[in-house]
Amino acid sequence: MVKAELEFWFELASPYSWLSAMRIAELARNADVQIIWRPFLLGPIFRRNGWETSPFIIYPERGRYAMRDLQRISSARGLAFQMPAPFPQHSLLAARLTLVGLGEGWGEEFARSVLFAQFGRGEPIDSAERLCPLLAQLNIEPKPALERADSAEIRQLLRRQTAEAEGKGIFGAPTFVTPDGELFWGDDRLDQALAWASARRPARNADSA
Amino acid sequence: MVKAELEFWFELASPYSWLSAMRIAELARNADVQIIWRPFLLGPIFRRNGWETSPFIIYPERGRYAMRDLQRISSARGLAFQMPAPFPQHSLLAARLTLVGLGEGWGEEFARSVLFAQFGRGEPIDSAERLCPLLAQLNIEPKPALERADSAEIRQLLRRQTAEAEGKGIFGAPTFVTPDGELFWGDDRLDQALAWASARRPARNADSA
Repeated sequence: MVKAELEFWFELASPYSWLSAMRIAELARNADVQIIWRPFLLGPIFRRNGWETSPFIIYPERGRYAMRDLQRISSARGLAFQMPAPFPQHSLLAARLTLVGLGEGWGEEFARSVLFAQFGRGEPIDSAERLCPLLAQLNIEPKPALERADSAEIRQLLRRQTAEAEGKGIFGAPTFVTPDGELFWGDDRLDQALAWASARRPARNADSA
Repeated sequence: MVKAELEFWFELASPYSWLSAMRIAELARNADVQIIWRPFLLGPIFRRNGWETSPFIIYPERGRYAMRDLQRISSARGLAFQMPAPFPQHSLLAARLTLVGLGEGWGEEFARSVLFAQFGRGEPIDSAERLCPLLAQLNIEPKPALERADSAEIRQLLRRQTAEAEGKGIFGAPTFVTPDGELFWGDDRLDQALAWASARRPARNADSA
């Protein structure tokens, strides 16, 4: 049988993306669904709404609520939770490095590591100085990874990912997208998204028979 | 044992409030939690954000997503779903009538009836003409109910409810509020809110012993 697929669109500065990143691998294994990790930037999408920063900052009640909601959920899942200062962090370099890593087989682990440093330990992730130790922990040589992250190819790839996210109607993170184009927004829709992808698993086709 | 309580803050023009209104009585019975129905108006709260209408209208991707999300959820729950035109409906009179009804023992049933007419059948609920048949179906005499809805007391009560919602930090509907002040926003947080209220059930006190 062909494996069911689900795209996981995430932003490296988003606390709800963190919640999903910490659990999606296990849930996907149990549902026998293949996850495609798709980093993108929310900033350019928010700016089309006229938002220059996170809606959690622009709408303080919404932000206060999100902090409490995140605390309750992480506590129920046995996760440490701490917001970085300032919030939101600049995630451009982290997103580019994640794209490099996804091409070289260490992207998922790196993304989890960046998100955990940021929301599990409250650390900034906005600079090469902050990200190099996280690369080193995964036995990735920082210098070539940073050079590749700065290449025209990777810059262009991240722009394309973000444009693709916007084209799909994505307006927040995380968002899960099924092969038949269904969007599921928010960590609280992850189970529903996996169930949808799993129930519409493609049939075995002639090539794979 | 004293019964655990949970406040159900809802807006009569909100489709996610409809989802909760259709299932909260049964879930609360199973959790042995007493629900306090608290209608309020989101309009004045949205206006503080500079929003003159629903965010589903102001942010079209958000609105398109919500429509699909609502379709999927209602379908999974075996509920018909149809949006009224125009959306959002003016819910001032419906909210005032619900307050009258909550004082006279028919408020919950009336609120469910208004929400179901609006989102199960896609009907307008913005006028006495639309609401009178719903009252009549519950064997409520429309004329005295409408007169009472127009009284200074009920007008003032609705203003107080809305101010109280804002004071609690409520910014959307439905929102569930526990006696210890925890907010849970959205139909997708209803189970969590009931579990929270139930786990912190007040002990039997001297007066009730």
